[in-house]
Amino acid sequence: MTVLIECVPNFSEGRRMDVVEAIAEAIRKTPGVNLLDHSSDADHNRSVMTFVGSPEGVEEAAFTAIREAARLIDMEQHRGEHPRLGATDVVPFIPVRSASLEECVEIARRLGRRVGEELEIPVYPYEAAATRPDRVNLADVRRGQYERLRDTIQSDPERAPDFGPARVGSAGGTIIGARPFLIAYNVYLANADVEVAKKIAKAMRQSGGGFQHVKAMGLEVEGMPQVSMNLTDFTRTPIYRVQEAIRREAQRYGATIRFAELVGMIPQQALVDAARWYLQLDRMSDDQILENRLMALEDNEE
Amino acid sequence: MTVLIECVPNFSEGRRMDVVEAIAEAIRKTPGVNLLDHSSDADHNRSVMTFVGSPEGVEEAAFTAIREAARLIDMEQHRGEHPRLGATDVVPFIPVRSASLEECVEIARRLGRRVGEELEIPVYPYEAAATRPDRVNLADVRRGQYERLRDTIQSDPERAPDFGPARVGSAGGTIIGARPFLIAYNVYLANADVEVAKKIAKAMRQSGGGFQHVKAMGLEVEGMPQVSMNLTDFTRTPIYRVQEAIRREAQRYGATIRFAELVGMIPQQALVDAARWYLQLDRMSDDQILENRLMALEDNEE
Repeated sequence: MTVLIECVPNFSEGRRMDVVEAIAEAIRKTPGVNLLDHSSDADHNRSVMTFVGSPEGVEEAAFTAIREAARLIDMEQHRGEHPRLGATDVVPFIPVRSASLEECVEIARRLGRRVGEELEIPVYPYEAAATRPDRVNLADVRRGQYERLRDTIQSDPERAPDFGPARVGSAGGTIIGARPFLIAYNVYLANADVEVAKKIAKAMRQSGGGFQHVKAMGLEVEGMPQVSMNLTDFTRTPIYRVQEAIRREAQRYGATIRFAELVGMIPQQALVDAARWYLQLDRMSDDQILENRLMALEDNEE
Repeated sequence: MTVLIECVPNFSEGRRMDVVEAIAEAIRKTPGVNLLDHSSDADHNRSVMTFVGSPEGVEEAAFTAIREAARLIDMEQHRGEHPRLGATDVVPFIPVRSASLEECVEIARRLGRRVGEELEIPVYPYEAAATRPDRVNLADVRRGQYERLRDTIQSDPERAPDFGPARVGSAGGTIIGARPFLIAYNVYLANADVEVAKKIAKAMRQSGGGFQHVKAMGLEVEGMPQVSMNLTDFTRTPIYRVQEAIRREAQRYGATIRFAELVGMIPQQALVDAARWYLQLDRMSDDQILENRLMALEDNEE
């Protein structure tokens, strides 16, 4: 099975399209990488790029994109509504297929070291790649933004980066890390009102005593009660387990599931896992899926 | 989404490995095609090759393989336990992804015409590609095998081929057609005996009044009652519908489904269809699957 890793870097430029295009092109021209999507927001003055590829490919593409952003973006000139620490603000690596979170942590730290040494940008690993508890959360690392980092990095030992120099240039600082794939997923209820959706959401979410890796809230959408969720690690808390728990809770209130929807993308693995569970295919191996056999062959040809 | 068609030709050679390899190589070297598997049986003196690819690719690969087989196999010399009509005995085209059975029928008939005209082999389209009811079934077309065809093709108007000359050379005749992907799939029961498995199998199979496109029998495997099935068109009679019907029938006898198993390969689409149905993802589009987005991009690059 082909290893596939996703990277979703955020850059502090959403207005000068020639700059955005130069960064996108740095990603596109890296072998073993495909740029799936990129979008820019002028008010935020920020762009998000989504690309996938081999471990080596995504690491190299992220490096060249960070180098382009450092060359073309001056944080002293940057203004925008969205908080940011540097020209390349945040770079998460995400396992999609046949890759572990640990491999993504290794990529994030290796890239962080290289960015620190070769580009002289201070780098802060976050989420699963963090080396300190106070650097796990992105908002904590970014607090005070570029301007506070610039003013305190040399004097405050607490701001010393994990990689790179304890000083900022025009590219500011960069936050690089690893996290699981996030599935955004909503369940619409029938024979219920929004209060039932809110009760079910509370029962599902981690903070309410429910499932690990589930964020949930109840609301009304298109006139229907909806349980709106983020599953932040589908390999540990799978979509089918949450859905069947919602079904049972709804039943308690005389309600049912009308339908469910995915917002954005989902890795094939999450759907295969659901089919395997519902169909009780306990003995199924991944290479029984014809397309997987084909991918394995194509890999061997390279 | 990348169109993917499977082709599983059977050749009348299972002993001379240099011949088998020459045919396999003809398939391998065709652009846009991947040879997934090939196996030879010495008693049957027959080889089966499984390859997948684009519509143009599989059509071309099948033609070059048939030409190689015609060049290297003399049906006057061929002896084997398995019935056969020619050097290339039977060539089914099977839609795997983003392709219809109708497209495979077109490929089969276009290939049949070319094989008839360029290689002067009499060709009989079968299954969905058949032009006459008495040529739908493979066993009907092959009745009497190569020897009877050789002796009667010129005198019996009923044996006139759809394509190619009404005479055989050393390559005999070839049967080319189109059929849906076949899923071989078994359900093991708990709290039941083999009699319950047999009753359920009868209720499921088309010939017993059950589902279209389902062949089923009840037997005992590894000491467990098993409903053994072939689903001959999963796009019309999907695996999840059959499985849930088995669950209900089993319940009638106080039995349950212990687990299910797939024998051989399954197209990704069949598992995605199951996940979509069980998770009630009525609005999901195929391009929400990350890997599909990636495949579409890679196609555009070609």
